[in-house]
Amino acid sequence: MRRFVIGSARNLIESSRQKYQFERSILSSSYRFLSSSPAADSPSSSSSSSTMAHLVSLSTINPKVIECEYAVRGEIVTLAQKLQEEIQTKPDAHPFEEILYCNIGNPQSLGQQPITFFREVLALCDHPAILDKSETQGLFSADSIERAWQILDQIPGRATGAYSHSQGIKGLRDTIAAGIEVRDGFPADPNDIFLTDGASPAVHMMMQLLIRSEKDGILCPIPQYPLYSASIALHGGTLVPYYLDEATGWGLEVSELKKQLETSRSKGITVRALVVINPGNPTGQVLAEENQKAIVEFCKQEGLVLLADEVYQENVYVPEKKFHSFKKVSRSMGYGEKDIALVSFQSVSKGYYGECGKRGGYMEVTGFGVDVREQIYKVASVNLCSNISGQILASLVMSPPKVGDESYESYSAERDGILSSLARRAKTLEDAFNKLEGVTCNKAEGAMYLFPRIDLPEKAIKAAEAAKKAPDAYYCQRLLAATGIVLVPGSGFGQVPGTWHFRCTILPQEEKIPAIVTRLTDFHKSFMDEFRG
Amino acid sequence: MRRFVIGSARNLIESSRQKYQFERSILSSSYRFLSSSPAADSPSSSSSSSTMAHLVSLSTINPKVIECEYAVRGEIVTLAQKLQEEIQTKPDAHPFEEILYCNIGNPQSLGQQPITFFREVLALCDHPAILDKSETQGLFSADSIERAWQILDQIPGRATGAYSHSQGIKGLRDTIAAGIEVRDGFPADPNDIFLTDGASPAVHMMMQLLIRSEKDGILCPIPQYPLYSASIALHGGTLVPYYLDEATGWGLEVSELKKQLETSRSKGITVRALVVINPGNPTGQVLAEENQKAIVEFCKQEGLVLLADEVYQENVYVPEKKFHSFKKVSRSMGYGEKDIALVSFQSVSKGYYGECGKRGGYMEVTGFGVDVREQIYKVASVNLCSNISGQILASLVMSPPKVGDESYESYSAERDGILSSLARRAKTLEDAFNKLEGVTCNKAEGAMYLFPRIDLPEKAIKAAEAAKKAPDAYYCQRLLAATGIVLVPGSGFGQVPGTWHFRCTILPQEEKIPAIVTRLTDFHKSFMDEFRG
Repeated sequence: MRRFVIGSARNLIESSRQKYQFERSILSSSYRFLSSSPAADSPSSSSSSSTMAHLVSLSTINPKVIECEYAVRGEIVTLAQKLQEEIQTKPDAHPFEEILYCNIGNPQSLGQQPITFFREVLALCDHPAILDKSETQGLFSADSIERAWQILDQIPGRATGAYSHSQGIKGLRDTIAAGIEVRDGFPADPNDIFLTDGASPAVHMMMQLLIRSEKDGILCPIPQYPLYSASIALHGGTLVPYYLDEATGWGLEVSELKKQLETSRSKGITVRALVVINPGNPTGQVLAEENQKAIVEFCKQEGLVLLADEVYQENVYVPEKKFHSFKKVSRSMGYGEKDIALVSFQSVSKGYYGECGKRGGYMEVTGFGVDVREQIYKVASVNLCSNISGQILASLVMSPPKVGDESYESYSAERDGILSSLARRAKTLEDAFNKLEGVTCNKAEGAMYLFPRIDLPEKAIKAAEAAKKAPDAYYCQRLLAATGIVLVPGSGFGQVPGTWHFRCTILPQEEKIPAIVTRLTDFHKSFMDEFRG
Repeated sequence: MRRFVIGSARNLIESSRQKYQFERSILSSSYRFLSSSPAADSPSSSSSSSTMAHLVSLSTINPKVIECEYAVRGEIVTLAQKLQEEIQTKPDAHPFEEILYCNIGNPQSLGQQPITFFREVLALCDHPAILDKSETQGLFSADSIERAWQILDQIPGRATGAYSHSQGIKGLRDTIAAGIEVRDGFPADPNDIFLTDGASPAVHMMMQLLIRSEKDGILCPIPQYPLYSASIALHGGTLVPYYLDEATGWGLEVSELKKQLETSRSKGITVRALVVINPGNPTGQVLAEENQKAIVEFCKQEGLVLLADEVYQENVYVPEKKFHSFKKVSRSMGYGEKDIALVSFQSVSKGYYGECGKRGGYMEVTGFGVDVREQIYKVASVNLCSNISGQILASLVMSPPKVGDESYESYSAERDGILSSLARRAKTLEDAFNKLEGVTCNKAEGAMYLFPRIDLPEKAIKAAEAAKKAPDAYYCQRLLAATGIVLVPGSGFGQVPGTWHFRCTILPQEEKIPAIVTRLTDFHKSFMDEFRG
């Protein structure tokens, strides 16, 4: 399997061709094998089974599955889980006491507490039988009880255990649409909302809709969140990369979009959509409104669907930047339903809520005709509906307690505490990375990640080659083995060829940050000492 | 769009070829369109937008999406939702007061109450902060509090809002594996369990893994639950039908499997897997153990993966039949990991629990090599994990309260009340259908459905043709318009060509059954009077 999925546009398109030929060769060879009735050729006695191959092998499964890669839970994380098990059985097996998962935006796994009001409402909706018991008033806030009743009244028969409408419960979509209107100052239609089990299935649905073959391309940022490369691979399309400019704080230049679009068109790729992640993952930049306008104009002129990953919309840490949804930006330019096809993804997993395990999210689908919308609905209906707790939570994050509600003070204190702490952690880690020899790190203006660049000594690159690893993967593996800190190598996200990075979340609890900085600094020094030329 | 997806094997393979050619022509024409930069040819002013076409049209989306059909939430259900809205705004708009959804196995939408113990545990896990409050002991059973603590202790950091392991929380998988062992009397490995958001995503994962092109076939029962036809269409494979024998109570004959396998192989289709739904959906039969042994032997001999849909394992209503998992049957035949590749699907949506909206479920994957299992894990990891409440519920249904637990009596009373009522409803509806002119209905031995056959008069078939409907769809639409009862036409599941059926759930609450029978009977009489020759 190829380790470097993402290189230049040329490499990608080349690799897509190779993939296609590879698929064809896999298909024809396995086809001969299977159609000759394999069982007839194999020993049929189960006693000889220990020497028998399994029926289904890598050479007979869908090559798109093999092609797909997802570094955020890849090889290094598997190794980390193994180390964690070893520590549990033998606490002094390694030179650290715990594994520090800085690989994934999973705040509550690192101790972030959920927003109390949200959990109160969820618990009451899970067990409505207690709603009118007197003890409940001692345990739950008055507004959580009131909100639970409101939500139950929006569900036919108050049945929180029933399949809902395949787009999600209508009353919850009304609440979400109202929340979008408050955020943007432009109307939102509940019939445009599709509630999903987190944002990932929504992204898959759009890829499934738009990709017809490997000749269809999706413009994705490099570096990118590898859900996009994985989903494009699974659906058999071609990832068309555009590079973010590290030198200008991961700037997104429309000239680069145009260049890559033209290059891929000249190679026979039909580009269907542009993915923009704002705030950026793994890069942490927040786009300026003028930049967003230029992106909208580009999509309109070039006839591209704009897939706007806006799951970090609440995670902005610098006063000079503000989140603007692409829908607000395009509407403020006077562009409506018929001018631009735009899908915005939102999730309950990020923001200050961080409710990853609840798998709630939605997409707002605008600028598609009724006939295509019916097709999206049909595909959603095959899986019946997303989980109701996730649906409820999605409505809560788009409509949290308001001034005057009993929970408002505790809610806003919890929210502000989390967001201001994240801002401090981002700054501390950014400064620490910038102090390391050969490391430069852009500011995390938003999202949950830093993506520092590391100049690795030639000897370290050779050592990585000898170990058959990408140099940044080699660095991350050595770091894990020495410190228990789990990072994701930049090669999992894509980067300018010849540069090396890693992604580090800003999520470890604040009191652990100094120890992480010390461990990182000590490791880095000894690594550089080992390999410095 | 073709209305009759499923016909004979010949028709299916023909239609698959046509589909393929259709896809190719769609691809090449849309390709020309898009690569010539559509926006440049279109009016760019937003003021002329009302006459502009949308960017994305049916001719430019993935033809596999268009091909996919899912009758359970199809045209008739959309019509029913419209009628329901009309009744809400104008109660006397139609000759009935409410819509009776007998189209889908969604028990709680029709008033079935959740199992109290399950909901207590879910609520406590959603809001663990109340676990050690004194009021909680007045509101929750002692064993639900104990179980919630047990589950929280299985979750790293007790973080129910964190992403879990991509296969699901290990402790919950341990519980599920233990439950499978109790059920089957054979060992189960927690590492074989993949927790999913209901069974549907698990089915999609296996189709994605096994289908490489339209030359790969999946043997499916006809009639079938249309998730299978939809998933095969979305993944670009070919559905290879085998017919259940209505005359022998929807018997599954291995001779039919062999015949269809050989026919499809002779047409160049590589059959990868056999889908068996037991208890049957929409057909309600429960397979005899001897029959299951013959099916296992067939899969072993022919090298087919056995995809066992066992989501109705708790829904058996006749004393002479018992549910046996295919894993138990194959292990009892002495067949182990290396002899047969077997995937069992289970869901929290069915059984006596009926928790459809919670989207919990799992698949037990056995007989696959480590390398292929790693690929399944990788695909699961792209979506990070299934929702934690659904995971918890899946562990609860596989490990309900036991004799001696505080909740045991209320739990078993709730469970037995639901199951015995379902058995009575199944019998009442079966008898009622069999009394209708031209209708014959097999017994529902299990699951949640009856699938009666209806001999439609020639005049009715002509009227359906004139209305451009399948005859059974025409019958169901007329029934809905006259009575508010929602059934699914047999053509959505597949049936022997020239026969007509519909699926009716046994889920309306018992006190409503007599009125349903009266309405059905009256409608049927007037329909037959209208069209009798």
